Amino acid sequence: MIKYTAFKYAPVLAFQLLLMVLYFIFVRYGGGEDANIKGFEDTHVMIFIGFGFLMTFLKKYSYSALGFNWLLAALVIQWALLCQSFYHMKNNTIYVTKKSLLEADIMSATVLITFGALLGVASGLQLLFIAIVETAVACLNMWLVADVFKASDVGGSIAIHTFGAYFGIGVSMALKSKNKDTTPTTNGNTTPSVDLNAPSYISDVTAMIGSIFLWIYWPSFNSGLTNTDAEYQRAVVNTYLSLAAATVTTFVLSSALNEHKGKFDMVHIQNSTLAGGVAVGSVCNMQIGAGGAVAIGIGAGILSVLGYRYLTPKLTKIGILDTCGVNNLHGMPGIYSGVLSVLFAGLATSDAYGAELGTVFSGIGQNGRTIGQQALNQFLALVVTLLLSLVSGFLTGLLSKIPALEPLKQKEWYNDEINWELP
Amino acid sequence: MIKYTAFKYAPVLAFQLLLMVLYFIFVRYGGGEDANIKGFEDTHVMIFIGFGFLMTFLKKYSYSALGFNWLLAALVIQWALLCQSFYHMKNNTIYVTKKSLLEADIMSATVLITFGALLGVASGLQLLFIAIVETAVACLNMWLVADVFKASDVGGSIAIHTFGAYFGIGVSMALKSKNKDTTPTTNGNTTPSVDLNAPSYISDVTAMIGSIFLWIYWPSFNSGLTNTDAEYQRAVVNTYLSLAAATVTTFVLSSALNEHKGKFDMVHIQNSTLAGGVAVGSVCNMQIGAGGAVAIGIGAGILSVLGYRYLTPKLTKIGILDTCGVNNLHGMPGIYSGVLSVLFAGLATSDAYGAELGTVFSGIGQNGRTIGQQALNQFLALVVTLLLSLVSGFLTGLLSKIPALEPLKQKEWYNDEINWELP
Amino acid sequence: MIKYTAFKYAPVLAFQLLLMVLYFIFVRYGGGEDANIKGFEDTHVMIFIGFGFLMTFLKKYSYSALGFNWLLAALVIQWALLCQSFYHMKNNTIYVTKKSLLEADIMSATVLITFGALLGVASGLQLLFIAIVETAVACLNMWLVADVFKASDVGGSIAIHTFGAYFGIGVSMALKSKNKDTTPTTNGNTTPSVDLNAPSYISDVTAMIGSIFLWIYWPSFNSGLTNTDAEYQRAVVNTYLSLAAATVTTFVLSSALNEHKGKFDMVHIQNSTLAGGVAVGSVCNMQIGAGGAVAIGIGAGILSVLGYRYLTPKLTKIGILDTCGVNNLHGMPGIYSGVLSVLFAGLATSDAYGAELGTVFSGIGQNGRTIGQQALNQFLALVVTLLLSLVSGFLTGLLSKIPALEPLKQKEWYNDEINWELP
Repeated sequence: MIKYTAFKYAPVLAFQLLLMVLYFIFVRYGGGEDANIKGFEDTHVMIFIGFGFLMTFLKKYSYSALGFNWLLAALVIQWALLCQSFYHMKNNTIYVTKKSLLEADIMSATVLITFGALLGVASGLQLLFIAIVETAVACLNMWLVADVFKASDVGGSIAIHTFGAYFGIGVSMALKSKNKDTTPTTNGNTTPSVDLNAPSYISDVTAMIGSIFLWIYWPSFNSGLTNTDAEYQRAVVNTYLSLAAATVTTFVLSSALNEHKGKFDMVHIQNSTLAGGVAVGSVCNMQIGAGGAVAIGIGAGILSVLGYRYLTPKLTKIGILDTCGVNNLHGMPGIYSGVLSVLFAGLATSDAYGAELGTVFSGIGQNGRTIGQQALNQFLALVVTLLLSLVSGFLTGLLSKIPALEPLKQKEWYNDEINWELP
Repeated sequence: MIKYTAFKYAPVLAFQLLLMVLYFIFVRYGGGEDANIKGFEDTHVMIFIGFGFLMTFLKKYSYSALGFNWLLAALVIQWALLCQSFYHMKNNTIYVTKKSLLEADIMSATVLITFGALLGVASGLQLLFIAIVETAVACLNMWLVADVFKASDVGGSIAIHTFGAYFGIGVSMALKSKNKDTTPTTNGNTTPSVDLNAPSYISDVTAMIGSIFLWIYWPSFNSGLTNTDAEYQRAVVNTYLSLAAATVTTFVLSSALNEHKGKFDMVHIQNSTLAGGVAVGSVCNMQIGAGGAVAIGIGAGILSVLGYRYLTPKLTKIGILDTCGVNNLHGMPGIYSGVLSVLFAGLATSDAYGAELGTVFSGIGQNGRTIGQQALNQFLALVVTLLLSLVSGFLTGLLSKIPALEPLKQKEWYNDEINWELP
Repeated sequence: MIKYTAFKYAPVLAFQLLLMVLYFIFVRYGGGEDANIKGFEDTHVMIFIGFGFLMTFLKKYSYSALGFNWLLAALVIQWALLCQSFYHMKNNTIYVTKKSLLEADIMSATVLITFGALLGVASGLQLLFIAIVETAVACLNMWLVADVFKASDVGGSIAIHTFGAYFGIGVSMALKSKNKDTTPTTNGNTTPSVDLNAPSYISDVTAMIGSIFLWIYWPSFNSGLTNTDAEYQRAVVNTYLSLAAATVTTFVLSSALNEHKGKFDMVHIQNSTLAGGVAVGSVCNMQIGAGGAVAIGIGAGILSVLGYRYLTPKLTKIGILDTCGVNNLHGMPGIYSGVLSVLFAGLATSDAYGAELGTVFSGIGQNGRTIGQQALNQFLALVVTLLLSLVSGFLTGLLSKIPALEPLKQKEWYNDEINWELP
């Protein structure tokens, strides 16, 4: 009964067993002082329900969206917990706390964003390979951003969103040459798999489960790693306001740019509404002001809808696929947030922050930097993230094309059939 | 590429920009003392997932239900935060805390209840206009209930549920004359849009997502604004028990009143189960007793199912549309809760409440009222809410009929087609 | 208008009224010291969304899955609160706290697991009868496990999962003789109802809502009744890791055992992923080590997928139906967890646990047992649970066959038609 294909995912089981051994050797329980950390459960919902269901929008790829999202995240959270903690080991031991779980969940978002770019066009084995490599590189980048540059990035818009999006774009660029001669056309000349790159009525409804849960819990995501009640509350308030403003803006712009009587486009509604959470991520614990949060959200909605409307078709035309448009939801809004963090770091004053100046900006508190130096480091963190993600993504993409990872033919794209027993 | 219809929602963007300006001028961050308030995240789920998915029950209006619910709530939470705080400004400044966000979320429920009455029959522009006006009036009413009458209404059954339902009924009465000659008939003479006023198998399943999440988090909703652990726990316990009892009663009664072999009716199951949460709302922090909570829930289930079974058809017949039956879920159970609050205020004793007498009933604690005076004020709060909601709803409904708001023709009712690019 | 069938569920209303009377007589509000207990809201989501949607996987039984799940749980939480507290009354009074609600929710899982075994083949009246009896017996068993044997079982893998699964198997064995001559055949000779024992594309997607929410909040479920921050955090960490490892293992094994090119099987993905939460349940607050938690999860995934692949077809063949395969998700993983609890109790040392030895193992702390005695009692708790659940389930199943409970004919199985007004 066991056939050749039975061993298809055997390397994944081997990796799971390796993780088990590493946990036995290196991981011990931490003390209870982080046991009451906020935001873990909400972030957990975002990762497994939010990302999973958001990606069910394709008419015949809902099982794969939910299944691979779950499999990748379940693998990555175990792996990320080790990789992230690697830079903070004490006596060669990793002490795991509830905060570690939150950080691992947050890191898994990086991989899921990349998955969004590749949705339907990468095989299961490719996705697993990419996820394992990306996690290691993203944790290195996180260490650069947080510990070397000591950049403020509490909501991870630089280290998570920007990294995940451009790693995905990097992979897509590497896969491009292979796809060149089979780029989907827009003139009705559809192969079966191209037909499947579209939603059904109900798949767009189930995608809204993911989208709205992401939106609801984004304030918890952005505020989970804050230090004080005041900083926590500011992160929650700013994220809430930015998301609300981005949502209103998205609806208005989606209608304004529509070709048929001002109708809304579900792609914008499911995605650009969330750009407000990304855009405010790096600065949500700073003194940006409630009006500033609203303004940032308005800008995020505009940026994201314009990206979906004008940029994505151009990228698709030159063969860089981005199924979920993560460049418009995570990529450009992530850069936008990084730039804002340079700006707000440069504008920070002791008057505005008081004793918080050194906790909101740990580079100022721990390294005695000036605000100018802090702004510079915010900028460097953003640039390094962009470069590292694109380059490592591209290289990983090249590696993922080996036959052993069973890359898909274009006619197999966007189709649950190849991965699942279907009813 | 920009056409006339591109400017359709331009006034909404203008309003969003106005909000931004008002936030810049008037809003500052509050201190961290309310940063750990309970119930915010759960209420947030109720507003955006709960109300949104509950209203997906129509077979071809799921996108609009989810989309308008999201758009309206995202706009209203920003606007309500200003309107509610207007009555409590210090030095012309609004200090926003996590509690403000919770209060804004709760206020947005008012508008979403009204939306439920108008589901499928009002245009997007009408809904937005109604939402902006209603929020302002509902915040005025909230000030009357909470600050003038100092009525106890911790779960908002008077100020939120009753107001939202009868504001919606008021709008429907105003829209009635327009619909008079096109009232849906029950004799099979169906126009396309009337056909659409019905669920599909899957739309009733997605509606259950909303219904059950509302049910689950209702204890958090009702208890979010309590003051002490004991009061909080009482609110949670009473709401939990009332909901459970209402649910059992709803199933039994739905079967008993069914014309075909005692089958259940999804309309009742999705809605009347929740009436237990409304009915106990105004009194859930009072000493009603666990048995009392169960009894109130049983009453709520009976009241609500009877309303759906016998009253709604009559209202529809005379042209007062109420698509979701909010009169049966929020209206009558809200009045029921208000009447219970008169009763339990009148029965309150120092023996039963101890030091809590002045915190559960702030009118007694702050104004030195007798329990009789408190009961009278509970009654006045209910009556004023009913009158103000009906009258202001009716007037708003009349105003919403101007052509600029693009009122729908009956053949356009209950149809996503007019608002969305569909697959 | 009132017909004979109108009285179909009248006994349920009578039972609800009896509950009301019992609450009036026996139940009072407890103090606020348990008002901030963790895990209640998350567990509430698991019971009503998690179990409810997980069981929507059948193509034409989604309404019944959601509806009966809700009705049964709403009834059982009221009834379980009384039954559980019966063994801890003070002066003939039950003091209800938020912790009581959590315990009642957890107890209702027992009944819902049993419901999973009987999904589609038992009538509404049978399910309600079974639920009421099972709750009483399960609360007795809980008292034996927790208070007599003082077994450590913080996540309820013995008292909840094992009990619920084998009570359900017991009922199925009792219903077997009736089904003997009509056992579903696998040779294509399908009656309509057998056709319905299968998912549709969308019903498997909605089932994932339930499955993933159960998975997400399982750490909250397992840790809800812990005593200290350190113990709580250990329970969360271990459950998180065990679930993640079980998930990866499930995907790999599901593919490996598939007959068609290594495809995944949704039955495994929806269920065996969760076995990691059951398997670690009884020991998650113990010093099992992070590596141990991963190992337990790997074992759970293997055990559960093998059960679905090889054992369930055999049980079905001999007429013991188990629609959701609760034996593979709750039964065998529950026994596995119970055996692990014997092992880890036997291995416990003062060195490893310190002062926690007496709180993690209350039998050691309160009764001064040796670790050997504690291990023996863990074993006895498991054996008694198995015996009591199977025997009481079998007897309850026999009783449920009386005509008054309207048992279903095979042609009525798996069909919403008999219970619901359908669109």
